[in-house]
Amino acid sequence: MNTGLFITLEGPDGSGKSTQISYLREYFEEKGIDCVFTREPGGTHIGEELRRIILDKDNREMCDMAEALLYAASRAQHVEELIKPALKSGKVVVCDRFIDSSIAYQGYGRQLGDSVRVINEYAVGECMPDITFLMKLPPAVGKSRINTEEQDRLEQEKLDFHNKVYGGYLEIAKHYSERFICVDASRDKEAIRMDLIEAVEKALQDRGILCL
Amino acid sequence: MNTGLFITLEGPDGSGKSTQISYLREYFEEKGIDCVFTREPGGTHIGEELRRIILDKDNREMCDMAEALLYAASRAQHVEELIKPALKSGKVVVCDRFIDSSIAYQGYGRQLGDSVRVINEYAVGECMPDITFLMKLPPAVGKSRINTEEQDRLEQEKLDFHNKVYGGYLEIAKHYSERFICVDASRDKEAIRMDLIEAVEKALQDRGILCL
Repeated sequence: MNTGLFITLEGPDGSGKSTQISYLREYFEEKGIDCVFTREPGGTHIGEELRRIILDKDNREMCDMAEALLYAASRAQHVEELIKPALKSGKVVVCDRFIDSSIAYQGYGRQLGDSVRVINEYAVGECMPDITFLMKLPPAVGKSRINTEEQDRLEQEKLDFHNKVYGGYLEIAKHYSERFICVDASRDKEAIRMDLIEAVEKALQDRGILCL
Repeated sequence: MNTGLFITLEGPDGSGKSTQISYLREYFEEKGIDCVFTREPGGTHIGEELRRIILDKDNREMCDMAEALLYAASRAQHVEELIKPALKSGKVVVCDRFIDSSIAYQGYGRQLGDSVRVINEYAVGECMPDITFLMKLPPAVGKSRINTEEQDRLEQEKLDFHNKVYGGYLEIAKHYSERFICVDASRDKEAIRMDLIEAVEKALQDRGILCL
């Protein structure tokens, strides 16, 4: 259905998504390819309003299902208002987090289960990513890079949550292997960059966006 | 599961829901029965923030699925934070609009179909109304009762939309006949009040909240 190319980046916080997105931006600029960079939650006016509510520390009483539905609402608007029109006009869209973040964080992390996939499939309709890069980095490794001190109970709880999320990501990647490309994010950023560019270049050529 | 009594009021705008709710309030006060009155969208701090976004005339670009998911998010929070705790403590809860509004307005009116029921069943879980009063009044009659200058974004929709919604309500009432009580809302408000009180009184007695 899409004439453009829809790329999403997934993985734990601190796995280097932002760095790789900046490399992709440089690459597309260099090649003169029209590319839209966006992020979730957010990406539209309504989405940014919802992002503010979701991330507001005063909204601690928000229940897990309300959170999952808000992410899905933001995503539905994002798809309809920005992603679909860009793809229809032949552009490349690069999105920092998308449907798989919800399935991993809410479905596996918060243990809301399959409801999250169902809700989000309504939200995105046919508009699924062509390529999803999963930045593989075990949460404990990421955490040890940042803080080597002994973890307190709350931090351990957080780590348990992030381990569930990470396990979820690995399951999702197995299930949707046709669009997932798993990247070993423990390596240096240049090696990761080369993996991403190689995969993106191939997809661009397949779609005739980039000539050989 | 509920120990209290959960009552919802549904129907077109202008069908007299607010008037009947004020009568119910008087009735419960008179009987000394602890009752929580609430409304959708809204009912909680997060819900009121979402209500503002949903009804904001500047958010005309909001797509139908985002709207449906926002209503569901607001409802999930409402159920978890306010309705379930009130029912668990044995209270009566009267809610102006609930799940059936979404199915009628988004499912039938916006023609999103069965997705709306599925999404909202996730949002409410087991917390379904014991009694739902459907105020039956053809939309053309209801519309003529409302001051057009004060209409919000949804109220401004065309009559055709409201006819679809009304048809939806009738279908839903048929499908969930065990909890629906259809009321002819074209009659004078005192006659309607008597119908509602009679049904409520019976339910209160069945639950031992009101003694014979």
